[in-house]
Amino acid sequence: MVGIAILGYGVVGSGVYEVIRKNAKSITRRAGTKIDIKHILDIRDFENHSEKNLFTKNFDDILTDTDVSVVVEVMGGVNPAYEFTKRALMAKKSVVTSNKELVATHGCELLKIASENKVHYLFEASVGGGIPIIRPLKLCLAANEITEITGILNGTTNYILTKMINNNKTMSDALKRAQEKGYAEKDPAADIDGIDAARKIAILASLAFGKFVDSAKIPVAGIRNVTLTDVEYAKKLECVIKLCGHCAALENGKVDVFVSPCFVSKESPLSTVDGVFNAILVKGNAVGDALFYGKGAGKLPTASAVVSDIIEIAKSGENTFSPVWEDKGDVLENPKNSVSKHFARIKAENKNEMRDKILSIFDNAQIIDIENGEIGFVTENMTAEGFNDGIEKLNVEVISTFLVLS
Amino acid sequence: MVGIAILGYGVVGSGVYEVIRKNAKSITRRAGTKIDIKHILDIRDFENHSEKNLFTKNFDDILTDTDVSVVVEVMGGVNPAYEFTKRALMAKKSVVTSNKELVATHGCELLKIASENKVHYLFEASVGGGIPIIRPLKLCLAANEITEITGILNGTTNYILTKMINNNKTMSDALKRAQEKGYAEKDPAADIDGIDAARKIAILASLAFGKFVDSAKIPVAGIRNVTLTDVEYAKKLECVIKLCGHCAALENGKVDVFVSPCFVSKESPLSTVDGVFNAILVKGNAVGDALFYGKGAGKLPTASAVVSDIIEIAKSGENTFSPVWEDKGDVLENPKNSVSKHFARIKAENKNEMRDKILSIFDNAQIIDIENGEIGFVTENMTAEGFNDGIEKLNVEVISTFLVLS
Repeated sequence: MVGIAILGYGVVGSGVYEVIRKNAKSITRRAGTKIDIKHILDIRDFENHSEKNLFTKNFDDILTDTDVSVVVEVMGGVNPAYEFTKRALMAKKSVVTSNKELVATHGCELLKIASENKVHYLFEASVGGGIPIIRPLKLCLAANEITEITGILNGTTNYILTKMINNNKTMSDALKRAQEKGYAEKDPAADIDGIDAARKIAILASLAFGKFVDSAKIPVAGIRNVTLTDVEYAKKLECVIKLCGHCAALENGKVDVFVSPCFVSKESPLSTVDGVFNAILVKGNAVGDALFYGKGAGKLPTASAVVSDIIEIAKSGENTFSPVWEDKGDVLENPKNSVSKHFARIKAENKNEMRDKILSIFDNAQIIDIENGEIGFVTENMTAEGFNDGIEKLNVEVISTFLVLS
Repeated sequence: MVGIAILGYGVVGSGVYEVIRKNAKSITRRAGTKIDIKHILDIRDFENHSEKNLFTKNFDDILTDTDVSVVVEVMGGVNPAYEFTKRALMAKKSVVTSNKELVATHGCELLKIASENKVHYLFEASVGGGIPIIRPLKLCLAANEITEITGILNGTTNYILTKMINNNKTMSDALKRAQEKGYAEKDPAADIDGIDAARKIAILASLAFGKFVDSAKIPVAGIRNVTLTDVEYAKKLECVIKLCGHCAALENGKVDVFVSPCFVSKESPLSTVDGVFNAILVKGNAVGDALFYGKGAGKLPTASAVVSDIIEIAKSGENTFSPVWEDKGDVLENPKNSVSKHFARIKAENKNEMRDKILSIFDNAQIIDIENGEIGFVTENMTAEGFNDGIEKLNVEVISTFLVLS
């Protein structure tokens, strides 16, 4: 018997409750013991809930209950989740969470506290919703040196971009549709501006490379300014526009990490990931490419990942507990050294002249001419600094730029 | 320090050796201890190997070495792997394997012996090569009732079908090409006739549903008779032909399992899995669809999966050991009750007459007319028995039939 408490009875919290009740039999078989919900913490009243006796508004009820060995933090946000998590870990209760903001911000410290107290801090649900990715990175791909990870990590922006690409909707129409369907918040900034994706790629990078990557320091570009003309250029290049989080281990020991809308080649398995789905492509030096795909959000998929963490703790017995990453200071490579192919749209009155100018500055650039008064081109692999220098030399108005991933 | 012995120094065995040597540092960090290769068993001589002192031809050297706690069985085939595995487990050494034939045939018994001796029998590499799938099914998706699994589980046949679809090669030309590239054996029967895929879907079904599914009793059709005309019909229906292994839990407690070439809708993420890649689509009642994609074979991907199992054992300490499936007798549903859409190509001299006849027998059948002297059609969902009865009533020569997966 493993006693648990759920902090927060919102979408994910009620999903966790539902999954544990609905799949009780198979969960008990797999965990080797019963998972027993002892308390649910929420500031709201649930008078009509069939198990209303489980609800409390006082965190101390949970902290002092020696029958509770696992605390499920699904409140979201940093406060009071941070405080509650710390206190639970220090009381030698394991904590399972879906809270990517907290993991990305304080994960390093919380993992350390967990390790010192010989309990777990697990967060499978923090990235990719129901997609198993954290545990495969820790266990299944443990034999590999992970060299890079590229992911479509935010379902809201992927839904919007898919609507633009497949249904010719403008950004604002697609956003409105996403809000109507409940895929986007009223204030969609965290999704649209890439902040959510940055937290997730920071967690993946920290885990893959074993060192803390600060999401606040990652260069992030969102999709707010993507237009249907950009989509057309991408099509011309056999690409689709996707908001990608990317991290790579560099030979100098640093880590290159960014979030950016990218032209993704139709040959990449990421190009076919549409709608609210997420996918994460991991490159390991032994396994080659491995892709994980599924629903990146939603009540039951996310709850499924939370409950899998609870089952792991129930099975783990006297297992070893170790921090998964450490703070090794500033590990981020200077973004200006980041190497990629680049796409740019620039104003061009005299197209022939501009074409020659582009080719004189960017070796072997590929020119795309599909619009009046402007010209597009793709560079070979080059540093961001080299690209920016070249653009400066061109001395023209830039309409938009994208990274190009093959 | 965890001492291991490798049985068989072929493609996978030498890959395991290479991965452990190459990634020693990160493996030690993740396992929390060093993985030490104590012996390599092979009947051949490796006089020029830089660590030739590790080689032995005598299994007893391994069995009696108390420093060896994990035996890596990568010999393939049932004998002598079965005997060696049993003896190792009974000597309280965990066994890790890539041997799908052995796991599919004797897995149930070997898991029981492992459990009785409080050691592990792990086989991540037996399905999907380097793709993490066994552990995600056991752990990550443990919160779900798995309802069905559909997989492209054999890289050889997928390579051949991809060449037929994308390059208009005939079956025999594509097979020849696969043999030249080392993707197909000289005697390709185990791949082409679906036997390899049957072993893998049997393992996945046993694991997902917790009861032993006998691969020898699964209805299996291979790709030997697939023609370029079949490929054309599939295209017309916005499908591609893939050799799929499929299993589903039925409400009556039985399990529906088959291996068959299928028309896979272009809307399915499985349709874009090309060449030697494998992919496995898992449906869980909480997570929805989750897809796992990667290299299904090859030295380093497979070795990567084997080594991940060794790392799990190294980390597991006094973990609980339980069999993952049990023999509950005959759990397979009678194949005639299996429900699917069906495609058939039949001889038709008088097409109008035949069209009417088809529609009078198969409600709402979709007719495809692209060839002289024949006609194709797709049924609604119906049992195999209903489909076969209908075909008998048509009383015509059948050219080919396929299941249709959406």
